Amino acid sequence: MEGLELVSSNKIFGGFQKVYSHQSTELQCKMNFSIYMPPQAEGGDVKLPVIYYLSGLTCNEQNFITKSGFQRYAAENGIIVVGPDTSPRGVKVPGDDESWDFGVSAGFYLDAAKDPWSKNYRMGSYLTKELYDLILQAFSNNVDPTRIGIMGHSMGGHGALVSVLRNPGLYKSVSAFAPICNPTKCPWGEKAFTGYLGEDKSQWVEWDATELVKKYDGPPLTLLIDQGAGDKFYIEKQLLPENLVEACRSVGVPIILNLREGYDHSYYYISSYIGEHFDFHAKILKA
Amino acid sequence: MEGLELVSSNKIFGGFQKVYSHQSTELQCKMNFSIYMPPQAEGGDVKLPVIYYLSGLTCNEQNFITKSGFQRYAAENGIIVVGPDTSPRGVKVPGDDESWDFGVSAGFYLDAAKDPWSKNYRMGSYLTKELYDLILQAFSNNVDPTRIGIMGHSMGGHGALVSVLRNPGLYKSVSAFAPICNPTKCPWGEKAFTGYLGEDKSQWVEWDATELVKKYDGPPLTLLIDQGAGDKFYIEKQLLPENLVEACRSVGVPIILNLREGYDHSYYYISSYIGEHFDFHAKILKA
Repeated sequence: MEGLELVSSNKIFGGFQKVYSHQSTELQCKMNFSIYMPPQAEGGDVKLPVIYYLSGLTCNEQNFITKSGFQRYAAENGIIVVGPDTSPRGVKVPGDDESWDFGVSAGFYLDAAKDPWSKNYRMGSYLTKELYDLILQAFSNNVDPTRIGIMGHSMGGHGALVSVLRNPGLYKSVSAFAPICNPTKCPWGEKAFTGYLGEDKSQWVEWDATELVKKYDGPPLTLLIDQGAGDKFYIEKQLLPENLVEACRSVGVPIILNLREGYDHSYYYISSYIGEHFDFHAKILKA
Repeated sequence: MEGLELVSSNKIFGGFQKVYSHQSTELQCKMNFSIYMPPQAEGGDVKLPVIYYLSGLTCNEQNFITKSGFQRYAAENGIIVVGPDTSPRGVKVPGDDESWDFGVSAGFYLDAAKDPWSKNYRMGSYLTKELYDLILQAFSNNVDPTRIGIMGHSMGGHGALVSVLRNPGLYKSVSAFAPICNPTKCPWGEKAFTGYLGEDKSQWVEWDATELVKKYDGPPLTLLIDQGAGDKFYIEKQLLPENLVEACRSVGVPIILNLREGYDHSYYYISSYIGEHFDFHAKILKA
């Protein structure tokens, strides 16, 4: 496929876990993404649903594909799974490597408005336009453009929620593990939004799921939120799922919040429940 | 538990993935090991089977517990799983970090006979005596000493096989992913055995599964060997499962060799079939 370079391919659960790199025009750098092709994709023109998975702070495209065990469930359900990286790479914006929760591997799936970030830090448009279109074109033999879902973890859970709410109809199903639900009200979000968007808080609400859901006016949508009750970032109020639940209830958007006793923020937790999330998405995408 | 220090504990599939450290007398250094306690272990005195898992070259106790997805199957079957490290750590033997296939993280689960390795590189006795006894004592509430199995990958597959064959009855079940089946006849084994055991090849056969099985005289045992057909180390003749199969057939020891079309040497491959291995062990350990 033109412009795509195969980085790796490993057989797993009868399908293939691949990583590609490509030159991104939105981010103006070379980016990796992962794609799992389940066994059902073999032998040509069969159209399958797609789920995007967005990773959290400090991750690249590797964490999810090596640690979550999702491939078993993608294979069972016949679902293609795409995992982008979490920020531009190698663009060397001053200050991009000074903290683990801002800059490199902390792109927050938004389009930065403030210099010097606005040139490269356009993960919002990258995800919902450039990569979205690239996947439709490069894998057109197998991708069903009418059955696309999205999920994510932590910063990536925020990314999944805002991508759905800002782009009604683009994704048919959404779920999140320990998402940053209300970034305008937590330290991670305040730092990232100040840095990427500037001081004008009227811009912040455009990238905050709890604010966006209040004005959501798209096709019917149920939000599935999973949260470990022992997650220290939940306890420290970085995630605030209750704020999202309250906002959803105020406007009648269905939301399921599953609190998991004793589970933390790690991939040990994600791997325990990702099968349930695949079932949730499959029910919607294969209805 | 005396002498054990808890390094980490994460809830996964209803149980707890823990890592402990302890001071090893065999290896004369501090060692980590992992132990998964399935949900069935909660609430006290219930005796469960145990499976040891031995990792391959370059690994420590982390690779298996983060990448294989075994916890789902351990939880389903109610099995405790213990994973030791692959060599002594921090003992600084001259030359121990010069290659990836000898020295640190390449202990080959044997007792070295040659200086300067013989002082610390005693992974054979560590595994089958010191750690074995430690687990029985420290987790006596939950471990059933009559139902212990062992499995491993690559160098760890070699370790699992020789541990069973050298210690009849110590382990009731054994399986291996891409094991080094005949180390006296492959480059990895020749290098390691020359380094750890010296030039006297009469010592080598005491740590070679294909040689040991020919004189095995213990309780009935079925060997389950799994091998990716696309594994480059298999193709390069580092693993030689056919030699083990031939030796088993010559003496009537049952062996199952499952060749997996298109699979490589990675944890992507292991994760695809580890569920089958747990079923195999559970059938024997829970009979």
